[in-house]
Amino acid sequence: MKTAILSTEIIQKLQAIVSPTFLFLDEETRKAYGHDETEDYVFPPSVVLKPGSVEEISEIMKVAFQYEIPVTPIGGRTGLSGGALSIHGGIGLSMDRFNKILHIDEQNLQVTVEPGVVTQTLQEAVLEKSLFYPPDPSSRGSCFIGGNVAENAGGARAVKYGVTKDYVLNLEVVLPNGDIIWTGANTLKNSTGYNLTQLLVGSEGTLGIITKIVMKLLPKNNHNILMLVPFFNASQACEAVAKIFKAGITPSALEFMERDAIDWTLRFVDGVSLTIKDEVQAHLLIEVDGNYPDVLFSEAEKITEVLEQFDIDEILFADSEDQKNALWKLRRAVGEAVKANSIYKEEDTVVPRYELPKLLEGIKSIGNKYGFKSVCYGHAGDGNLHVNIVKGEMSDEDWTTEIPKGIRKIFELTVALKGTLSGEHGIGYVQKNYMDIAFSTTQLLLMKGIKTVFDPKNIMNPGKVLPDNL
Amino acid sequence: MKTAILSTEIIQKLQAIVSPTFLFLDEETRKAYGHDETEDYVFPPSVVLKPGSVEEISEIMKVAFQYEIPVTPIGGRTGLSGGALSIHGGIGLSMDRFNKILHIDEQNLQVTVEPGVVTQTLQEAVLEKSLFYPPDPSSRGSCFIGGNVAENAGGARAVKYGVTKDYVLNLEVVLPNGDIIWTGANTLKNSTGYNLTQLLVGSEGTLGIITKIVMKLLPKNNHNILMLVPFFNASQACEAVAKIFKAGITPSALEFMERDAIDWTLRFVDGVSLTIKDEVQAHLLIEVDGNYPDVLFSEAEKITEVLEQFDIDEILFADSEDQKNALWKLRRAVGEAVKANSIYKEEDTVVPRYELPKLLEGIKSIGNKYGFKSVCYGHAGDGNLHVNIVKGEMSDEDWTTEIPKGIRKIFELTVALKGTLSGEHGIGYVQKNYMDIAFSTTQLLLMKGIKTVFDPKNIMNPGKVLPDNL
Repeated sequence: MKTAILSTEIIQKLQAIVSPTFLFLDEETRKAYGHDETEDYVFPPSVVLKPGSVEEISEIMKVAFQYEIPVTPIGGRTGLSGGALSIHGGIGLSMDRFNKILHIDEQNLQVTVEPGVVTQTLQEAVLEKSLFYPPDPSSRGSCFIGGNVAENAGGARAVKYGVTKDYVLNLEVVLPNGDIIWTGANTLKNSTGYNLTQLLVGSEGTLGIITKIVMKLLPKNNHNILMLVPFFNASQACEAVAKIFKAGITPSALEFMERDAIDWTLRFVDGVSLTIKDEVQAHLLIEVDGNYPDVLFSEAEKITEVLEQFDIDEILFADSEDQKNALWKLRRAVGEAVKANSIYKEEDTVVPRYELPKLLEGIKSIGNKYGFKSVCYGHAGDGNLHVNIVKGEMSDEDWTTEIPKGIRKIFELTVALKGTLSGEHGIGYVQKNYMDIAFSTTQLLLMKGIKTVFDPKNIMNPGKVLPDNL
Repeated sequence: MKTAILSTEIIQKLQAIVSPTFLFLDEETRKAYGHDETEDYVFPPSVVLKPGSVEEISEIMKVAFQYEIPVTPIGGRTGLSGGALSIHGGIGLSMDRFNKILHIDEQNLQVTVEPGVVTQTLQEAVLEKSLFYPPDPSSRGSCFIGGNVAENAGGARAVKYGVTKDYVLNLEVVLPNGDIIWTGANTLKNSTGYNLTQLLVGSEGTLGIITKIVMKLLPKNNHNILMLVPFFNASQACEAVAKIFKAGITPSALEFMERDAIDWTLRFVDGVSLTIKDEVQAHLLIEVDGNYPDVLFSEAEKITEVLEQFDIDEILFADSEDQKNALWKLRRAVGEAVKANSIYKEEDTVVPRYELPKLLEGIKSIGNKYGFKSVCYGHAGDGNLHVNIVKGEMSDEDWTTEIPKGIRKIFELTVALKGTLSGEHGIGYVQKNYMDIAFSTTQLLLMKGIKTVFDPKNIMNPGKVLPDNL
C-alpha cells in the first residue's frame, strides 16, 4: 500500500460529511494527530477528521472504501505500540468528539460509553454511583476508553480484576465498508455465535471503528491497604510475587519497580519523596482491597509473613489517602520518567508469573551481550514486565543494529517461558515484525484471513499488528 | 452438503491411523455417539473414531480434508443445543481417550488438561491442591471440559466467577486441514494479535478440534452460606435478583426455580424433601462464599434485608454440608426432571438481569397465545433463564407448527430486552435458524467468513451455529 494522496474531490466529499469545522489539513493539526507516546515516531495523516456521530463515520468509511484510502482511528494518543500512527497517511479519524458517557445503568451494573471518554473520567463517573470500573492503565488521566478496548489495556488492578476485555460486553462498530453492527448483546453470558466482541477487543483498530462500548461494572470497594516493600535483591522481589498468590491471597495490585525506575521517577515527579537504602535493588507495591477492614488487615499480615522469608528492608504502609496517592503517582509516572531520561524502546513482555525471575535475569544477561541497559517495572502479579531499553551513551549505530537483535532475544526468551510479546500495549507498528516469534505462519495466516473478512481492501489501520512479509 | 458415505478405502486409511480397536462401525456405537441431551435427536456418524493423540487427530483431519468428510467432535454428550450430533454423518470424533489432567501448575495457578476430562473430576483434582476451578455446569458429573470450552458453558457460579471463557488462557487446536496450532500463550494478559483463543471458545467445534486446554485457577474458598428463599410471587423473585446486586453484594450463586421446576424435581430425585406452602410460586437459591465466616454472615444478613422487602415465606438456611449438597442436587437435577416429565424443548435465554421479570412475564404471555406451558429456572444472577417448553397434552400438530412460532416470539422478546439467544448452551443444531433474530446478515456473513478462513471446505461440524439459508 502506497501512502495516500487525497484529491480535492475526496476532500470535498469528506468535508460535506463532517462540515469544514471538523476537517483539518493544516500541518500543525496533522502532526499533533500523527504521534502517540511510542518513542519519537511521527506519522501525520493526510487529513484529520473529527466526526460527531456514528452515521458520519459510516459515511466517511464508505468514501474511504470506494477510493481505498487508509483510515487510522485515533484516540487519546497515549499508546505505546504505535497503533494510532497514520503510517500510510490517509484519514486520521479522531474520536475526540465521542466523549459522552451515554448511560450508567445502575440496575444492571453496566455503562454505555463513547470511545472518546477519558478512562479516569469514566472511573470517576461510575464511582459517584458507588460503582467500580477496575481497569486502570497508568495513562488513565489522558487515555481514551476506546483505545483501552482497541489495545486490551490492563493496568495495576488487572491482577485481581482482569483487563479491559473482561469488562466489554458489547460493541457498536463501523466496518470498513461503512456498515454499522453490534458485536454481541448486553449480557454477562453469551454463547450465541462466534465471539465478535472479543475479536474486536485488542484488534488495534484494524477490523473496524468502535463507536459505542457497553461494559459491565462492579459494586465499589470501600477500603484498601497499600504497602511499599524494598528488596535487597531484585530477583527475590520477583520470586515473592508467586509466593503471595501461593499463600492464597489475591492482591488488587502487585507492582514491581527496579531501583533505577524508582530513582528516576523520584527525580521526575513533584511532591513525592522516599528514603531508600543504597542496597535496595527493587520494590514491590502491593495493594489489597475490599469492604471489610479486618479482612484486609488479615490479608496484609499474611502477605507480610510471606515477604519476611525474603531479604527485605522495612515495609512502608501508606497511612493516609495522601500517601497512597503519592505512591500511586510515583508508580504511574515511571513510564514518563524513563522517557524523559533517555531515548528508549519499551517492550511489554508477559510470562506466567512464576517465571518472572528467569525473565528478569535473562533480560539483564541479554542486555550485557548486546550492550544495552534496561530499566524494568510493571504488573508483576500478572507476569507483565515492561522492559525499557535506554539508549544512554550507546552509539546511534549500535542502537540501530544491535537493539533489534537484543529485542528479538528477549521475545524468544519470553515465548520459551510460555509467555508472549505484549501483555497490554498491543503490537501495533513497533512490534509487528517480531510476531513470527510468537506465532507460526499458520497462525498468522488465520489472523490475516480474519482481517481480510472484515477489511477486504486493507484500508483499516493498515501496516499494524501483522508482519510486513506475511 | 450431502450425508457422507465412507468408502472402504477411506475406512482403511482411518483404521491405519487409530488402529482397528478404536474405529467403530457397528450400529450400537454409532447410535450411542449420535445423540447428546438435546431433546430426542439421534444423528449417528458413519464411523466413530476414538483417537489417542493429537498427531492421530491431525492425520484424521488430513484424510477428512482430502476427501471432504464431515467431522463432528464428540465430548461428554451432555449438550443441550445438539452441537455433538453428526447431522451429516461422516466421522464422529470421540474425545473419550483425551482424559488426562496433564499438569496442575501450583506455582502459576494454572492447569493444563485434555478435553475429555469430566469437569467435576477436574474441579476435584485441583481442589486437592487447594485450588479452585469455578465454572460449574449442572452436568458437571458427566460433561467434558472440552465441551464446556466449545460451548462456553456457565453454571451456577458464573454470577461471581464468570463462565468457561474467563478461565481459558490457551488452546491447542487441530485445524480442519490437519495443522496443529496453539491459539495464545499461558499468560493472564495478552495483547498479541487477534484473540484466537476467545474465537475458539464457544465456536462449538466448527473451527477446529480442541486437544489441550490451559486454564487459570483461583485459590480455593473455605466457607459458604446457602439459603433457599420461597417467594409467593415469581416476578418478585426475579425483581429481588437485581436488588441484591444493587445492595453491593455479589453472591457466588443466585438461582431461580419456578414452582413446577422444584415440584417435579422433588418427585424425580431421591433423598431430598422439602415442605413448600401451596401459595409459593418460585424459589431463589442464594450462595455467598469466601474465606471469612464473619463476612459471609454479614453478607447473608444484607441479602436477608433486601429479601424482606418482598413477599416471601421463611428462608431456609442450609445448616450442614449434607443439606447444602441436597439443595444443590435438587437444583442440578431440574433439567433432567423436566425431561423425564414430558417431551420438551429447552431455550437458554439471557437478558440483562434487571429485565428478568419482563422476560418471565413475556414468556408466560407468549405461552398463553401459542398454547404451551413452560417451566422456567436458571441462573438468575446472570439474567440467564432456561425456558422449558413442555409438550404435555399438546397435539403433535400444534407441537410442530405452533412451537417454532412461539420460540421465535420468545427470542424476539429476549433481543428486544438487549439480551440474546443463548447464555451458555450454544446455538448448535436446534437454534441456528433463529440466529437472524439476534444478528443481521452483515454480522452473520462476518461469522461465515471467519468459518471459511478456518474451514474452507466446510467439513468441521457442518450444519451448526450458522443458519441454513445464509
